[in-house]
Amino acid sequence: MLRIIFLLSLLFALSNASVQDFCVANLKRAETPAGYPCIRPIHVKAKDFVFSGLGTPGNTTNIISAAVTPGFAAQFPGLNGLGLSTARLDLAPKGVIPMHTHPGASEVLFVLDGYITAGFISSANSVYVQTLKPGQVMVFPQGLLHFQINAGKSAAAAFVTFSSASPGLQILDFALFANSLPTELVSGTTFLDPAIVKKLKGVLGGTG
Amino acid sequence: MLRIIFLLSLLFALSNASVQDFCVANLKRAETPAGYPCIRPIHVKAKDFVFSGLGTPGNTTNIISAAVTPGFAAQFPGLNGLGLSTARLDLAPKGVIPMHTHPGASEVLFVLDGYITAGFISSANSVYVQTLKPGQVMVFPQGLLHFQINAGKSAAAAFVTFSSASPGLQILDFALFANSLPTELVSGTTFLDPAIVKKLKGVLGGTG
Amino acid sequence: MLRIIFLLSLLFALSNASVQDFCVANLKRAETPAGYPCIRPIHVKAKDFVFSGLGTPGNTTNIISAAVTPGFAAQFPGLNGLGLSTARLDLAPKGVIPMHTHPGASEVLFVLDGYITAGFISSANSVYVQTLKPGQVMVFPQGLLHFQINAGKSAAAAFVTFSSASPGLQILDFALFANSLPTELVSGTTFLDPAIVKKLKGVLGGTG
Amino acid sequence: MLRIIFLLSLLFALSNASVQDFCVANLKRAETPAGYPCIRPIHVKAKDFVFSGLGTPGNTTNIISAAVTPGFAAQFPGLNGLGLSTARLDLAPKGVIPMHTHPGASEVLFVLDGYITAGFISSANSVYVQTLKPGQVMVFPQGLLHFQINAGKSAAAAFVTFSSASPGLQILDFALFANSLPTELVSGTTFLDPAIVKKLKGVLGGTG
Amino acid sequence: MLRIIFLLSLLFALSNASVQDFCVANLKRAETPAGYPCIRPIHVKAKDFVFSGLGTPGNTTNIISAAVTPGFAAQFPGLNGLGLSTARLDLAPKGVIPMHTHPGASEVLFVLDGYITAGFISSANSVYVQTLKPGQVMVFPQGLLHFQINAGKSAAAAFVTFSSASPGLQILDFALFANSLPTELVSGTTFLDPAIVKKLKGVLGGTG
Amino acid sequence: MLRIIFLLSLLFALSNASVQDFCVANLKRAETPAGYPCIRPIHVKAKDFVFSGLGTPGNTTNIISAAVTPGFAAQFPGLNGLGLSTARLDLAPKGVIPMHTHPGASEVLFVLDGYITAGFISSANSVYVQTLKPGQVMVFPQGLLHFQINAGKSAAAAFVTFSSASPGLQILDFALFANSLPTELVSGTTFLDPAIVKKLKGVLGGTG
Repeated sequence: MLRIIFLLSLLFALSNASVQDFCVANLKRAETPAGYPCIRPIHVKAKDFVFSGLGTPGNTTNIISAAVTPGFAAQFPGLNGLGLSTARLDLAPKGVIPMHTHPGASEVLFVLDGYITAGFISSANSVYVQTLKPGQVMVFPQGLLHFQINAGKSAAAAFVTFSSASPGLQILDFALFANSLPTELVSGTTFLDPAIVKKLKGVLGGTG
Repeated sequence: MLRIIFLLSLLFALSNASVQDFCVANLKRAETPAGYPCIRPIHVKAKDFVFSGLGTPGNTTNIISAAVTPGFAAQFPGLNGLGLSTARLDLAPKGVIPMHTHPGASEVLFVLDGYITAGFISSANSVYVQTLKPGQVMVFPQGLLHFQINAGKSAAAAFVTFSSASPGLQILDFALFANSLPTELVSGTTFLDPAIVKKLKGVLGGTG
Repeated sequence: MLRIIFLLSLLFALSNASVQDFCVANLKRAETPAGYPCIRPIHVKAKDFVFSGLGTPGNTTNIISAAVTPGFAAQFPGLNGLGLSTARLDLAPKGVIPMHTHPGASEVLFVLDGYITAGFISSANSVYVQTLKPGQVMVFPQGLLHFQINAGKSAAAAFVTFSSASPGLQILDFALFANSLPTELVSGTTFLDPAIVKKLKGVLGGTG
Repeated sequence: MLRIIFLLSLLFALSNASVQDFCVANLKRAETPAGYPCIRPIHVKAKDFVFSGLGTPGNTTNIISAAVTPGFAAQFPGLNGLGLSTARLDLAPKGVIPMHTHPGASEVLFVLDGYITAGFISSANSVYVQTLKPGQVMVFPQGLLHFQINAGKSAAAAFVTFSSASPGLQILDFALFANSLPTELVSGTTFLDPAIVKKLKGVLGGTG
Repeated sequence: MLRIIFLLSLLFALSNASVQDFCVANLKRAETPAGYPCIRPIHVKAKDFVFSGLGTPGNTTNIISAAVTPGFAAQFPGLNGLGLSTARLDLAPKGVIPMHTHPGASEVLFVLDGYITAGFISSANSVYVQTLKPGQVMVFPQGLLHFQINAGKSAAAAFVTFSSASPGLQILDFALFANSLPTELVSGTTFLDPAIVKKLKGVLGGTG
Repeated sequence: MLRIIFLLSLLFALSNASVQDFCVANLKRAETPAGYPCIRPIHVKAKDFVFSGLGTPGNTTNIISAAVTPGFAAQFPGLNGLGLSTARLDLAPKGVIPMHTHPGASEVLFVLDGYITAGFISSANSVYVQTLKPGQVMVFPQGLLHFQINAGKSAAAAFVTFSSASPGLQILDFALFANSLPTELVSGTTFLDPAIVKKLKGVLGGTG
């Protein structure tokens, strides 16, 4: 009995010393450059480390016939501070995840179903494109333009992971055409004809 | 024509400045603390960024009825320097990925098939266990003991990603019983009876 | 006199620019992934950078005849954000710091008194064991299982430092046997006989 | 005299311990994920820490009436391992640094001469544009699309610094139109009409 | 119309996922080891990424005939979390930025006007000095003593950037002579004669 | 028997995946910004993780009556890549470790014997001084000027650890007076009288 008391006091002392194995995000608090403040360990539950939002296909009834379902720290607070995040891609036949970047992370993509043509372009303008089948993995280095296209006749899906809990996602067409960046600036910095810029702004809901 | 020449000279100048978007590992060279030296960009091909080793189930005809198939930098050199790596878990019915740690990385697990009971234990000895179904994701914080067990009646499989290109993998039973660490030291540091240690050393091929 | 005024105004301007040489922890505030928020520099005192808790031997009258006294950020707030923490090990004759890991840090150990047999096991299951005398230093790489045993006939002591202000400490026996992790899961993931697991749970205060 | 000998022996001992204040790149050796191997300290000279390539305007007689002159680790080996690099921007009247990203770094821009309208677009598609005059500084967060345009009637110039020795530079038009990425893929992932893609490929020297 | 609605809902979903491209400092909140907490993205404006404090020469009518004007995170909150900061140096004829260090950052200096003799000293006591003209860049590795002196007959100025948003600035003379560090300790740790120390304390406003 | 074969093949597969728990330095190879290249794991021995150079007092028969014995990566190759290094301080009565910085690391000091007055000065010129007794620990934040003085009548000693395998060591007097930095530059950047500079250069072996 005494032994157990000794042991438990040792255990107690050591446990108090052992902080920050993890840092489940308190999304109500202001972020810091390293992520969200942590909720207290006593309030952390096993389910905080599980995310169920990627189990079903996203809605692909849209202009790109595709969906990106994020499981970043904002959706999956258990990832905060651990340097990883997740997402699911769904591509209906002819679906396209348009040209985009993740400003703060590299990405690995694991094909679940279907065939996906994926590629990225390097700073040296080299093109790296491959058509992937289920079970294949492709890595996209940090910050580079990349895309995924359904290369088959049936729906395709993939599970992706990022090297940051908040990787960011900048979709090229939205960045150029779905906001108030003036047509003149878009045209002047992309060499696209102003008429084309205006047309795409119309389709994508941009102004200016 | 002149314009194109101007442009190309600009392009050429800029491309030369744009190094190290990625660093495909030269596995024949000695590692550094940050990973392997890179092969020259001119030798890099699109297929260097693709890994096909996770598409088929690992062989689970073994004592744990399970398999871990790694896709770390050593198997998938395109990951080198990008802070990510991959693996596939297969669990036959009653299969178990025994208690283990990854000394250098956190892990996210995406269930592909079947049901998996997974858990980890924190520095404060708290237990976080969940039974996962296909499509669910669980995160295991860096360096903590964790395990996966087939919780269903059919085969289960999962795709996992790590927050390092070389996460390491220390399986508890192998660390304790499958090497030359003397029985006396194992027993003395785990409080397991020497007879039990010797028996497990016998099963797992350890000596001493 | 004017010169001094010029100088002081320069000094004042520069001092205001010079923030965050250090970040003494405000332990009352929620942690972030990078550590605790800082107390204001004006409240920082010289004694915040000194810790006196490691000067006397820990109480080794317990089942392991040993003690670990932590000087982590939670005990020594001046370490917050500086990437280092400290502890003291005491081992009575026959004392043992049982098999354990630090999930978030490498460790250096400096022997103060006595003889200590210390070792760690790599991901490749290689064993690295040495018997150390006073003045010798050993390093234990991040996240790997390691232990220390009194190898002499008198008390032994060591000063240890970690490469993180919150390194964590996961003691194998406590992780396996001193909590509510069900006997079935412990047994199934370690290949220890359920009867042995139940017995050790009894000794260490675990349940289930 | 003896004192000096004592001193010098102390000095010698300490100097040997003091490695890697810096790591001037050996550009002939293969890169690693952390940068180039270092040349031996004994071969390092003061001039290795100076770069003279940014002192004169780049040639702006080209299609964009602008020039980017890089001073990255490849041009300025003293930067290797220090987490910084440099460049100079020159914009003739009507000159444009087209929409681009730096995949691995944030950027600060200091206007030397003239007026520059600069902007970036966030992951949330928000637009941050400002017209800058000499002496003003603007920061562009890592990996986001940004641009600079001459906003005045005379030549403009800026000195820029990056938070990495090898920040990369991906110019949108070159990435989309100046390589062999098939027109079909460019069009499919950008929603630009194939005819427009083909036309821009023609201007920029792309194929496919 | 429906298409736009589909698109916008996609856009909205993705935008919510895209946090922390940047983290403009909320200077009213306590710092963390990684920097200040962020203001909410909705309150961020384009001007938060611009700093106008470096456009005019600092006041050099002082004992050093020089001025350092900082643009660190405390003055330029848009830099917070981005790993960069800025400053401007002004040196009247005979002006000197005295021997100093930045404890947490490397520095690049771009000469705007005049001639500057700049140098640093390595851990191995090697001296690296160069006289720079307008347009030349010099890098000063992290934490090393360095200085800048006007080497011409007219005013000189430079724009500098640091590899941290809060690099710190420790001016040697102020550290030794402009505070309450007792003369005995200063003298004992620098081998300067106590009378000299007292004299410099007098000039620089120190006590003790 | 079959079971063991299955197991061993599993073990073999996993071990191959488990690289870089550590990276013992190959000191014959050129350093990289992240440290030395690693020797092959098969050549690593337990003794590579042990350093015996700090067990005996350094020679304090010198002008400072003190000695710093380094155990950095260059002396203790097992530390390479692990973010830690070590040293021993010895101070005879009246001994002084003169004012110095470590450009690349914070430091913790553990007093072994005697009494030590230690202090550091912040960027804001605040002074943090404490007199320490055996068993007390003090932390010195990265890059700041600090010193240690024997505060008792007998020899004092301390074990120190740094947050980098190559922390650097810049001793102020040596940096200013023990090299070829011209007297004019030293005097001009420190406000010390040229005669004093020349005298100290004479004592410390400097020229110029």
